[in-house]
Formats: sequence, structure tokens, C-alpha cells
Amino acid sequence: MNINSPIGIFDSGLGGLSVLRQFIRFLPNENYVYLGDTARVPYGNKSKDIIQRYAIECANFLIQKDVKMIVIACNTVSSLAIESVIESAKSIPVVGMIKPGSHAALRSTKNGKIGIIGTRATISSKAYKLEIEALNQNKSIEVNSQPCPLFVPLVEEGLLNSEATRQIAYNYLQSFKDCDIDTLILGCTHYPLLANIIHDILPGVNLIDSGEHAAVNSLRLLAERNLLKDDSNIFVEQPKIDFFVTDLPQNFHKQAISFLGFEVEKPELVELG
Amino acid sequence: MNINSPIGIFDSGLGGLSVLRQFIRFLPNENYVYLGDTARVPYGNKSKDIIQRYAIECANFLIQKDVKMIVIACNTVSSLAIESVIESAKSIPVVGMIKPGSHAALRSTKNGKIGIIGTRATISSKAYKLEIEALNQNKSIEVNSQPCPLFVPLVEEGLLNSEATRQIAYNYLQSFKDCDIDTLILGCTHYPLLANIIHDILPGVNLIDSGEHAAVNSLRLLAERNLLKDDSNIFVEQPKIDFFVTDLPQNFHKQAISFLGFEVEKPELVELG
Repeated sequence: MNINSPIGIFDSGLGGLSVLRQFIRFLPNENYVYLGDTARVPYGNKSKDIIQRYAIECANFLIQKDVKMIVIACNTVSSLAIESVIESAKSIPVVGMIKPGSHAALRSTKNGKIGIIGTRATISSKAYKLEIEALNQNKSIEVNSQPCPLFVPLVEEGLLNSEATRQIAYNYLQSFKDCDIDTLILGCTHYPLLANIIHDILPGVNLIDSGEHAAVNSLRLLAERNLLKDDSNIFVEQPKIDFFVTDLPQNFHKQAISFLGFEVEKPELVELG
Repeated sequence: MNINSPIGIFDSGLGGLSVLRQFIRFLPNENYVYLGDTARVPYGNKSKDIIQRYAIECANFLIQKDVKMIVIACNTVSSLAIESVIESAKSIPVVGMIKPGSHAALRSTKNGKIGIIGTRATISSKAYKLEIEALNQNKSIEVNSQPCPLFVPLVEEGLLNSEATRQIAYNYLQSFKDCDIDTLILGCTHYPLLANIIHDILPGVNLIDSGEHAAVNSLRLLAERNLLKDDSNIFVEQPKIDFFVTDLPQNFHKQAISFLGFEVEKPELVELG
């Protein structure tokens, strides 16, 4: 791997596109390899053993693509299998979602009351809660968590503004009103797409997009290792992204264009494991 | 200067706090010196000669504080006097608002139609327009600019949600509806505070906060020069910020706390020039 190697990003499906979008925002001049494990999505309701096995397979695929960094876009994998990915990656730096999101939440909160939403697996793992407690040195912090298992399928179906989604979100988020949080971690890559609805239900609460902070952390990490491409003479055009999926490439292609807002190459269908 | 030297930020007044906030968001572990030239605010309706003289005086003040970087938070100074600041700064890196904001706008736009709002001086200088044209290599780009001279005094008076502000914003922004922009550069540090109102008037338009991108650019620049403080063992607490103003320190202190959301040291009154 070298400066011109791509940044590798993997996710269980298309949710990781919200993370990719943040990377493009801050690192537009880099090349990317994106792997969506659409044949086995969603990961959020599966066991730790299975998630670890899938994560290692995804990481190995990216390593073979000679990536200079592995980004675990999936919060569930970041919660349950980051150690396995780090072990597979050897000298390649690995960035997950939990640490950047936890940092940002601690910096954001004024009243010390932080909410976390995520898949069942992410919330059960207590990964965000434990990370926040480990990072916290001084503040009195209260963490409240809520799994939102229907958000992923609702987003995958494109119901971003429907009354049904609003109703379900209202039910999920109601408890946060009572405990007076001022900061909410969107602990799943799909959730930034529901930010408007969440904002309406919890006005004044600062929403943390872990993907945004993971992108900035990665920028720092790569810059410190002299692994960032030169951007002094940047050409402003679409970044180069190679997409790979394990199922339904046409479907993914359509959703990626709609999500990123520009034309991208067709994803290549690959088999993992 | 060394790794532990502070990052210096200057502005004509308190608008630069929106830039400082973005720096704290992405570089919470750094020390900061913030200079607000409140005795001579606003810069936006003054001549180029005067703005250059004031800018050099502000930069020299920060240089005496042994800063490792100078951030020109003020868009008007960034437009008209960045070369003078670079000359004064010698080997100290200087970051302004125009280049990061222009980059971000070019990356954001899909239809090639970019709007810019700023003070009269910023808009007359055409700094954003020229930078966008210089950076642009391929796209067909149309740039529309609109000075919004009342926004600064309205924000300084705290009228962030008033009906009057909404009405004035509506009049300023109306022309952008006709030319169908998809991206708007908030080309003045005060304007991110009016983002909600602007968003209501121009729904679906991506608002570019130049301060956010200046912060990320600075992170990169410092990381590449090995000038970032270690954050591997970050303590999550308030960052250390020394404030200096040229007039009305009590007033600034109150507004800084309300704006940043945490208690800060009282600013020290200083004389420039």
C-alpha cells in the first residue's frame, strides 16, 4: 500500500453510503473501494460469532484490494468485531464508528445526558456506553440507549418522510424527552437519513453522525502517516469509487446514485467467504 | 512555536466564534488564542487599505502570542487581505475562509449553480467567485452573489429568529430561487447563526459553512507538519481558549458563553496598532 492506494470502506449494505459521503466531503481527492455485503444484510440482528466471521471476510476482501485504511462503516460490526478486523488488518489502520462518535458526543453534551440509538446488536453490546465511560474523565455523564430495529428496513424501503416512519420514530424517541438528553448519537449508518424526522421530534438535541467524525479522524490518521494524496492542485470532479456488492448490484447501483447525487460505476458482484 | 503552541484565530468581532466552534468540534485538544477586534467592528463596509492595515495588526498580535497557525475567521479579511497576513506571518501557516469554502461548494454542487452571500466588501471583492473559477476544471459553473449587509447587525443584536430577520432574509435570498442554485456559501462568519432561517427560505439548498471546512483543512495542514497535539489519550474537557478583544470585554464574554455553550475565561482588553 502507498499514498495512492484507495481507502476501503465496508458495510452490511447501503447504509455505509452515508459514511462514504462524509469521507468524500472531507477527502474528495482520495480513491475509494466500497464493499456492501448485500447478500447477508442486515447484520444488526445476528450473533456476535457470525458478525465477526462476516467482518473478517469483508476486511480480507479489502486487504486484497491493497487499501491504505479500512473503515468499518457498520456500527454493529464496529461494536462487536473491530478487534477481529484489526487483527486481520495487521499494519493497515482500522477506523470504526464507536470511538469517533463517542468522542463527539462527549464534546457536544453540556448537561451530561447523552442518548444512543442503534440496532439491537449495537445497543446490546453496550459498545458506545462503554467507550463513553472509558473516555470520560471529569463530567457526570448519564447515557440512555434505545434500539430502533425498524429504522433500517424503513430507510432501505426509502420511507424517509412517511407518516408511518414519523410515528415509529416518535414511539422510539419518546423516552429521550423524559430524560432530557441534549446529545443523541445516531449509532447506525442508516439513521442520518432520518435526521430531519428525529430533529422534529427532539428539537434542540444535537445529533451526532459518527460517520462524519470517523471521516475527520481518518483524515488526521492518514495525514500523520503521510498517506494522504496531495490536494494542493485539486481537480474538482467526482472521486473514483469502486463498488463491490454480494447481491443485487443493479439495485445497489440505483440507490448509490440517488444517495450520493452523482453518477457512479456499476458495482461488481463478488462472493465472500 | 511548537506542537503545544496555540492556534490563533482573529475576527473583526464575535462572528468568528462560529469558526472557533468548528475548530473545537474537530480539534478539541488544542489550545486557542482568539482575538476579536471589537473596537473597529464591522470590517465589511470599510476600504481595502484599512482592512489590510487592521488585518496586519491582528496577525502581529497573534504572532506575538507564539501561535502555530493563524486562522482568518473574517471572510472580509480573507477576501481582501490574506496576502498581507501571509507576508506578516512568514513561516506560520495561514488559513482563510475563501479557499475552503470554495472547494466545499464545488464539491457540493450537482447542477453547477452556486450562490454566495457575504458583506458588501466580500461580495465586491469577488474573492469567492474568482477562487471558484480558479479551482474549477471541468464543470460548467454559474455563480450568483448577493450582499446581505443587515445580517451582521441583526445577529449582533441577537435577532436570530425574529420575524423582521426572516423578512429581510426573504428579500435578500429571493433572487436565488429564480436562478435555481443547489449550494449556497455562507460567506460571513455571522451567517451560520441564521442557517435555520436561510434553510426555510431555500429548502433543499446545501449551505456551506466555510468555517467548518477551514477547520478540517487546518487539521490536515497541522497533521502533515506534525504540529497537532497528541489526542490518543484525550481528556474530554473544555478546551483552553485565551480571549482578547479591543473593546467591551464584558459584552463579548457574555456572548461567547452563550454562543459556545460553556463557561470561558474573561477576555483581556488590548490595544492594537
